[in-house]
Order: sequence, then C-alpha cells, then structure tokens
Amino acid sequence: MSSNKRRPIGVFDSGVGGLTVLRKLAELLPNEDLLYLGDTARVPYGDKSPEKIRLYAQQCALFLLEQSVKLMVVACNTVSAVALEAIEEISTVPVVGTIKPCAEAATRCIQQGRIGIIGTRATVQSKSYEKEILRLNDPNKVSIFAQECPLFVPLAEEGWHGHPATYAIAKEYLTPLQKAKIECLILGCTHYPMLKKVIQEIMGGVRLIDSGEESALVARSILQSQSQMSSAKTRKIECWATDLTPTFASIVYQFLGLPASALHQVPLDLFVEERHPK
Amino acid sequence: MSSNKRRPIGVFDSGVGGLTVLRKLAELLPNEDLLYLGDTARVPYGDKSPEKIRLYAQQCALFLLEQSVKLMVVACNTVSAVALEAIEEISTVPVVGTIKPCAEAATRCIQQGRIGIIGTRATVQSKSYEKEILRLNDPNKVSIFAQECPLFVPLAEEGWHGHPATYAIAKEYLTPLQKAKIECLILGCTHYPMLKKVIQEIMGGVRLIDSGEESALVARSILQSQSQMSSAKTRKIECWATDLTPTFASIVYQFLGLPASALHQVPLDLFVEERHPK
Repeated sequence: MSSNKRRPIGVFDSGVGGLTVLRKLAELLPNEDLLYLGDTARVPYGDKSPEKIRLYAQQCALFLLEQSVKLMVVACNTVSAVALEAIEEISTVPVVGTIKPCAEAATRCIQQGRIGIIGTRATVQSKSYEKEILRLNDPNKVSIFAQECPLFVPLAEEGWHGHPATYAIAKEYLTPLQKAKIECLILGCTHYPMLKKVIQEIMGGVRLIDSGEESALVARSILQSQSQMSSAKTRKIECWATDLTPTFASIVYQFLGLPASALHQVPLDLFVEERHPK
Repeated sequence: MSSNKRRPIGVFDSGVGGLTVLRKLAELLPNEDLLYLGDTARVPYGDKSPEKIRLYAQQCALFLLEQSVKLMVVACNTVSAVALEAIEEISTVPVVGTIKPCAEAATRCIQQGRIGIIGTRATVQSKSYEKEILRLNDPNKVSIFAQECPLFVPLAEEGWHGHPATYAIAKEYLTPLQKAKIECLILGCTHYPMLKKVIQEIMGGVRLIDSGEESALVARSILQSQSQMSSAKTRKIECWATDLTPTFASIVYQFLGLPASALHQVPLDLFVEERHPK
C-alpha cells in the first residue's frame, strides 16, 4: 500500500488554465507528487463539439492513467461539463471534476437561493452546473443565472487582468447577473480567477466560488478518506504538454517556479485521433 | 485539358477566418468550383509552435490534394508565414499564400517607404512579411512597423465589430503604428477585415491591405496565365471542417448563404498526428 500512496495525482486541462488548480493542489497537499497535462496542441476546447471534447478528454485521461496516477483532477470546466462520464467510463482511479464541488459550495452559501454561473460557451450550454445544483436543492427554491463569457479566456491569457477594456467587457457580461441579485457566483472556468479583481469590483459583495479551489479540496478529502495520502518528505511536480511552447514554459515558471527540466513534450503517437479508447 | 479546368480551387484555413477569402474568390471567379477546409478541431494556430503548425498545414494540404484541386489558396496568415515551404514541398499544384501578395501590394502603395503590419503572435514573430518586403525593396528605403494583435481574432469571432471594448483594444494596439506615420497597413490575418471599420477609424487615411483580397487576385492571375480558368455555366461551393459545429454552419451561412447540404465533416482518420507526409 505504501507504494500506492507514492503514486502521483494527475491533473489535466485543455491548456494552461488548470495550472491555477495545480498550484492550489501543491499548497493543500505538500507531500504529493503532481503530474500535469496541458493539451496545448488543441486548446481551446470551449468552442469545440461535445464529440471532439469527449475524444480529446479520454486521450488525456488515458495518458495520465498510463503514468499510474492514483487520482485524477479534471481541471477544466468544459471537460467536466461535457465529458466527465466519458472519463469515468475508462478510469480505474477516482476522478474529480469541477461541477460537483462548485455546486456543493454554492449550495452551502445561499440563503435566498440565487446562484450565478459564468463559463465558456460549451460549459454554459451544457447546463451541467444547473443540473447539479437542481439535484442538490429544491428546484422551487433556487434561481440560477448563467452567462457565457467567451472573451475572458483570451483576456486572461494575454495578462490584461486590470485593463479598461477587460473592465468594459466584464461589465457587459456581468451586469445581468448583478441585476439578478445573485448571492454567489461560480467562476466556471479555471482561467477566471486571474480576472477575480475586476469581477469582484463589478459584483460587489457577491461571494466568488473558485472551481479550482473547490476541486482541490475535494481531491484532498478523497485521499484522506481512502488513506491514500503520501507522507513523503520530498515531492516532485512534472508538467507535460502536447505542444511544449515557450509560452507554456513561461506560464509554468510564473505560476509554480518550475524550471525547464520539469517540462516534457507528450510524444505525438499518444495523441492520434484514432486512439479512441472505446 | 478541359476536365482539368473543371477541377476545384482548394482553400484552407485553421478556422472560419478564411471564409473572407473564399467569398472574395467566389466574387472574382464566378465559374470556378470552390472547396473550403477549416481545421476547426484545432483552431487557433496563432499560438502554436512552428512544428505543430507545419504538421497541421501539411495534413490540410494533403486533404485538398486528394480532392484533386487545381490550385491551393492558403487563407491563413499564420500558415503562410510559418509553413508555406512545408506545403510547397508536398504540393503538385500551385500554392498561393498571403505574404507575397500583400508584400507586393504594400510595395506598390508606398512613397515614403513606411509600412505597418498587424497579425497574430506567430505571424508577427515569424517576420515573414518583413523578409518579403525587404526582398522586394531597397532595405535602406523602407521602415517596417509590426504589431501583434492577439485579441482581434476572438473579438472578430464574437462579432464585437463595433463594440467600445474593441475600439479601446484596437486603440492600444494601433497607436504605435499611427505615431509611426505608416502609409499602408497590412491586415495580416483573415479575421481582421471584420474589424476594418474600427481599424480604419483609428488609422485615418492609411490604406488597409486585405490579405484575402490580394491572394484571391493572385490566384485568378495564375489561373489566367496557365489557361486554367473554368468556363462552366454553373459552379458549386463545398465547405469541409474537421469539427463541424453549429457555429461553423452559421458563419458559413452568414458569409456565403450556403445551406447545410454544402457542409461536410472530414473523417477523423484523415487527421491523425502520425499522418505526416515526410
């Protein structure tokens, strides 16, 4: 069993957004080896069809399973919304998505039952957050307000976190939610915490629920309940990408201080379209 | 030879941006069959590594060659900048990119030798436009000013063509070019014509060079000089995508009025990573 506990936790995302989740896991679980996979060759997933998203997600999951991870965190709301079942079908280890942890956090937070959600087009159109919230609550006692924010990812990736244009765009997206008097707002995309300051400024006292933080907490409690926590004195963090670009390297360094030696390119033949697990 | 003339012209782009080029070709060449391929499953190319862009571009080119096109238009500045040689290596028909036609148009336009270029990160960093302009002109008599505009593609795709945020972002990108007193500005991305009004407003009387328009003109003159123009009474336009989404269908309808029956999904096994022509 002890060798089992030393197996890494796997984290994957379509690109770099999931690094916010990786960082949170690194903080919460200081003794765990962590293995990150960013599908940077095919990012973004947010506007792709559900069929493509499921295929790509299963390929990412297969890669992590082959690295003997003991738990998998799907650090991408689009994948969690569209393809979590497809991953669970092929996974031999626990899978933590972002939807359930956020829906639970929102349920704990509300008094008047007014919940807001922002996300990519694919996430919002999947209605996955709504379904989970309605499963946890009396449908007559909750009102859910969802808003697609497709420009937030490029703005976050460009680092325009406090730019007046970002503020103007955020104001346009968020005004309907503000008028709806929501009590909490689910940041349904791992990129959005980078824009937290602007979002909080517009939303006033509304509590922001960070999907990365919530899923990291759930991952920790699963490992605890299964006695799978590592007690190793040192740990290692590795980042893999399907397209290892200088931008990826620089963001990994900026987020986690990891050197180039911690970065790896996924061999091409692991990501062929025909490598479909079914 | 007559059957040769009836072969279609192939056009490809990483996504939907190249539809602006397809529309221009449809106007200029009313008797030609046209076949469009959008690699929507892997869009955008602009932030990917040169190796990935070359691989994807060769796969797109192979697909068009297998459809027996008589000429290929690379309606994507990123591919033209990074992978035109890689395509020419495998192509058996003439290949028209965007770089050379624009560099020639800019050369015809200037009197003081001051040329501006805007494009994606990959296009600008490749310095392909600079190299071609310097090849055509006395290097001591031209000054070139290039600016990356990574947020223009998502803004154009969202349809925020005249939004105040678009204006603010464009102002930030374009002010250095305006101060540099350029005489013409190459719109080095097929999406940018959608933002022409905002760009023209900020740039005043500066002549905008549309890469789609210039490459369509060059394609026509190649067919003319090779006596390969079709004289058919009717023609057909087909659009293929690697991920046939509702968004793709709606933009094709909006741009060209084509019905769903003109749309096709590229079979997955044609786009495996290992299908590398070398």
